[in-house]
Amino acid sequence: MHRFFLPDHAFQGDEIVFPVEPARQILRVLRLRIGEKVAALDNLGWEFRVELVEINPARVKGRILGKQPVSGEPPVHLHMFLCLSQREKFEWMLQKCTEAGAAEFTPVLSSRALVQDFPALENKYQRWSRIIQESAEQSGRGRIPQLNGPVKYDAAVGQATANSILCLLAWENEKTLRLADALIGQKPGAAVSLLIGPEGGLSDEEAELAVRLGWRPVSLGRGILRMETAALVAAALTVDWFEANSG
Amino acid sequence: MHRFFLPDHAFQGDEIVFPVEPARQILRVLRLRIGEKVAALDNLGWEFRVELVEINPARVKGRILGKQPVSGEPPVHLHMFLCLSQREKFEWMLQKCTEAGAAEFTPVLSSRALVQDFPALENKYQRWSRIIQESAEQSGRGRIPQLNGPVKYDAAVGQATANSILCLLAWENEKTLRLADALIGQKPGAAVSLLIGPEGGLSDEEAELAVRLGWRPVSLGRGILRMETAALVAAALTVDWFEANSG
Repeated sequence: MHRFFLPDHAFQGDEIVFPVEPARQILRVLRLRIGEKVAALDNLGWEFRVELVEINPARVKGRILGKQPVSGEPPVHLHMFLCLSQREKFEWMLQKCTEAGAAEFTPVLSSRALVQDFPALENKYQRWSRIIQESAEQSGRGRIPQLNGPVKYDAAVGQATANSILCLLAWENEKTLRLADALIGQKPGAAVSLLIGPEGGLSDEEAELAVRLGWRPVSLGRGILRMETAALVAAALTVDWFEANSG
Repeated sequence: MHRFFLPDHAFQGDEIVFPVEPARQILRVLRLRIGEKVAALDNLGWEFRVELVEINPARVKGRILGKQPVSGEPPVHLHMFLCLSQREKFEWMLQKCTEAGAAEFTPVLSSRALVQDFPALENKYQRWSRIIQESAEQSGRGRIPQLNGPVKYDAAVGQATANSILCLLAWENEKTLRLADALIGQKPGAAVSLLIGPEGGLSDEEAELAVRLGWRPVSLGRGILRMETAALVAAALTVDWFEANSG
């Protein structure tokens, strides 16, 4: 069943009035017919089963048949701090980590990041938000991961540890502590921050700063992973650990 | 340090004569200089430290300084059966699963695979082999994963279980058995086959056939993963489990 996250104003009593973009999807792309069912999500924790009752260029409307609490959310609030990289890789990480169960993204400007231009980033937010939302819809997520504004490296590592949650740094120089072992003792629903360095790796100074501020360097195995591979593998290992340890 | 898997004939006593392609890499792409060190791998389990002693369009030669057994190989022989998909996705899976530690690949033609043309595949083998080798070189692998010829689905699922090793099928309809739990009891160095279905999912008949032949359906978590995401996540979870359980 096709799934759509919809804004507050789309829910009108027992009716759904689809906003322009999902209406276009239903009419032009998916070519759904009256009587077909879709799922509407309010991003507040509810999933609605909806029967389409009106489909035309002027309006796409549905009738709510029932609702249930969302499933598909992992038992961890995983906040990914992703150093900025080339467009394609960065978008890929947003898409894949959303599938894997990340709850929040913060783009990070590290000294070796391939992208350094702060203002230029603003324009990308709409595109990135759409990628995240589509991935959340397709992968059965119950909530859209949150996308924060970009922050400089120093601020990012400081901010995360200030909230005194578990902060893990995927670092190729860490050879012994496996990511899963760093999670031992965490409770279901815990918040975990995960920092993925840029292509060229973090500089020694950057890694040292993070460690000084309380980030734990972890290993993702004996292989040397590309940045985008590391992001997905780290997210998947974290979510899997919580799935296994949430009874 | 740059790493090169080299054929048998490149190793000549205490010298290395680089074949055409790595010679071109060293001369034109990496622009290495005489005196610089590289790593040469024989794909038989040895890694050689090599000093470059001659670099010119006619010949690139090195002197062996020492050798050591390869590291970077995970404690599992992971055989990925990947249903054929669009070119980009399939190549991406080969690259990423090599990083994650897969040891062997078999392309599979399932009934819903987007690619059905057997002869056309032959031409792709050289390209796929290069992708796998480059990924193995860059990610620090000690061996190049083996690439088998394409097989039809029925033959693939029959062949794997005939070798009486653990065969796991990533299946979205399996909701309870986690991949890691299906590995319990496996010993370091074990062989595991992992089958990743195509975009549209396996047909019920295909899944039933695999199960009848001894494949165990496993879950990769509560999300619905795209094919390529499932391949990398499944490979990473498998290798991580063996890393954790190989003392």
